Amino acid sequence: MRVELLCTGDELVTGLITDTNSNYLEARLFDLGVKVERVVLVGDVRPDITRALTEAASRADVVVVSGGLGPTADDFTLECAASAAGVPLEEDPRVLGWLHERYAARGIPPNPSALRMARVPRGSEPVKNPEGSAPLVLMKLGGAQLFFLPGVPREFKALLEAEVLPRIRATLDARPGRTYRAFRLLRTVGIPESELDLSVAPMAPRHPRVVFGFRTHAPENHLKLMAEASSQSEADAALAAAEAECRQVLGPRIFGADAETYAAALLETLRRAGATLAVAESCTGGLIAQQLTAVPGSSDVFIGGAVVYSEKMKSAWVGVPPELLARHTAVSRETAVAMAEGVRAACATTFGLSVTGYAGPGGGTPEDPVGTVYCALAAPGLPTRVERISVTGDRDRVRLFAASFTQEMLRQHLLAAPATP
Amino acid sequence: MRVELLCTGDELVTGLITDTNSNYLEARLFDLGVKVERVVLVGDVRPDITRALTEAASRADVVVVSGGLGPTADDFTLECAASAAGVPLEEDPRVLGWLHERYAARGIPPNPSALRMARVPRGSEPVKNPEGSAPLVLMKLGGAQLFFLPGVPREFKALLEAEVLPRIRATLDARPGRTYRAFRLLRTVGIPESELDLSVAPMAPRHPRVVFGFRTHAPENHLKLMAEASSQSEADAALAAAEAECRQVLGPRIFGADAETYAAALLETLRRAGATLAVAESCTGGLIAQQLTAVPGSSDVFIGGAVVYSEKMKSAWVGVPPELLARHTAVSRETAVAMAEGVRAACATTFGLSVTGYAGPGGGTPEDPVGTVYCALAAPGLPTRVERISVTGDRDRVRLFAASFTQEMLRQHLLAAPATP
Repeated sequence: MRVELLCTGDELVTGLITDTNSNYLEARLFDLGVKVERVVLVGDVRPDITRALTEAASRADVVVVSGGLGPTADDFTLECAASAAGVPLEEDPRVLGWLHERYAARGIPPNPSALRMARVPRGSEPVKNPEGSAPLVLMKLGGAQLFFLPGVPREFKALLEAEVLPRIRATLDARPGRTYRAFRLLRTVGIPESELDLSVAPMAPRHPRVVFGFRTHAPENHLKLMAEASSQSEADAALAAAEAECRQVLGPRIFGADAETYAAALLETLRRAGATLAVAESCTGGLIAQQLTAVPGSSDVFIGGAVVYSEKMKSAWVGVPPELLARHTAVSRETAVAMAEGVRAACATTFGLSVTGYAGPGGGTPEDPVGTVYCALAAPGLPTRVERISVTGDRDRVRLFAASFTQEMLRQHLLAAPATP
Repeated sequence: MRVELLCTGDELVTGLITDTNSNYLEARLFDLGVKVERVVLVGDVRPDITRALTEAASRADVVVVSGGLGPTADDFTLECAASAAGVPLEEDPRVLGWLHERYAARGIPPNPSALRMARVPRGSEPVKNPEGSAPLVLMKLGGAQLFFLPGVPREFKALLEAEVLPRIRATLDARPGRTYRAFRLLRTVGIPESELDLSVAPMAPRHPRVVFGFRTHAPENHLKLMAEASSQSEADAALAAAEAECRQVLGPRIFGADAETYAAALLETLRRAGATLAVAESCTGGLIAQQLTAVPGSSDVFIGGAVVYSEKMKSAWVGVPPELLARHTAVSRETAVAMAEGVRAACATTFGLSVTGYAGPGGGTPEDPVGTVYCALAAPGLPTRVERISVTGDRDRVRLFAASFTQEMLRQHLLAAPATP
């Protein structure tokens, strides 16, 4: 099945917004075994849209069109479609009814320009949009099935999922030789992409139905597995076998799958161990606390975070002795250790984590230039562990890498020696 | 000048990555007064690329092509270009020299597959790529000037800025009637888009050369001004006049321009007042501290942040009396006030800010459902101010709106009554 996508709107060709609809549709179709053949973005120019529609319909079996269905003067996609098909626009009584319903529900009189949305090409089939005013419109052009969707991402996605993809899936299911796919994203942090590749490459020949891909999403590196087969159950089984072998080889270095964050993985590991956590942050400035508390339900594990952005507060909140700061400076192994131990004691938690470093652009010393970060972990019954890392890049990157490294330090510790609080 | 963009690569039509190159190019060309006519994305399929090249060259004056110039088996854009032009690929001795230079610099022998990158269409003009191996290639096809760039965003941008845009600008400057543009993004938070529109609409007729646009980038609403004129100085002057009037009407509700964040605006306002700040966060969990400390140089103003995710730490770090928590609960006006005053006292700062609320999805009470947040500001010589806000949406959205609202509370306070610490 040849599928093309046409996105209309001046905002898409002037760099004002990134077109996320096409990405979403491509990924959903790829899940169904269909690779989109071509995506075309055009501005709000009638002859350009009409031409692009005619061209796409001449090449493809299915054309999904987004944008230009609204009530304003620059919404004329259906006018172009009618012109490409050589038919007039006609007011559709069903659409008119849906529009009146929406206005009645909001208790305001219908606006004449909004009622323009009821005008659809003769012979087309409008479908109600539960998320907005402009309907989905189905239409044939040449040999192609066209789907016209609103460009608003929420409406586009809702109609795609509820109306368009089921129709495409039904057509695919009716054809012989359909490809079924299954996916898994395995997330790691702290393993270079080249090392991931080396670990995984030897297993690829044993999984001929699985494509192994890699992607860097700093500070994480992801391993993408895609299985293809002639039935969904075969694709799922091939994926499960490849995932199991990856997990065997990489072990706990995979912190999560699909959408899981490393903060969520750490919280879950702590929860299983019955442990609690507090953090003391200097250069990360609250980033670790923010990542942990972004996870719903984190409050049963995460007790407190001290953002100690001054020497005074390092002493006041997490008990770093002023003499220690004077002797070793705020960015040192000794300060990191005292912060981790101090915040653990202050919050009476199982574990304490700390970060202090030079995130830049200012600061740093010849021995500890910008990008140097000390990360410490205070744990029950063990000497506090401290690591020095050097991160290249700008302030955001240094903070992001330091935050992930510190959280992974604790997760790896828990997996190696589960806490007995 | 008609410009089209063709991006090649399977990853672009399967939803694996978002194409950022086209957005970047569109915006840079729009700055020069050129609206891209069409963007086409195609997968790594030879006939599809050849056809798309031929079609684009038949319509446009300039076609910028990205991707498929590398050394691997799925890099064949130049092969398609040669086929579209009916010329052979030929090894270019200059490109071969550049490739050998790069390998020599890295101290490794040239790889035969990499040397394929020296094969360019007969009659084309390669230009050295300072950021990578694959050269920029200039070529004529039909009446169009084609530019072939590598798809790696860093290389694409570098070659675009250094080689492609200067050539396009020179062509534009040689034509009569070129349009010059100037832009300003004015950022607000806490003003609904409809109110922004109402404030600004009456001034539009006085600025015929300026287009007023609006964009929501939650929690911010942005006002976009674009001036067009027949010279750069006229465009700049028209923009400055419109910006001045917007600033007069909206005053301090505009917190910043272009890339400035509200945290940076708050820090700068505090710095000018010679004031310092500490924050106590419950439901925002470090987000405010993280936003403030993301700004370089924040440590002269921001002293400390307490992420008090438990009742115990609300008492220990910011001195909220346990009786007060027992009587009013952790999410209450009283607790917010005690947190703001307590963190101000603990850090001995000019101002203290606090946030406590129900970010969801769990929690909340009938009186204070999920989305309810109390934000307080402790200032010298004034009663502590506390605001209750209700934010709709998910956990991330509640936290984001609470963080921006709280910071804006202080910035507005400073602008209304500058601190005299």
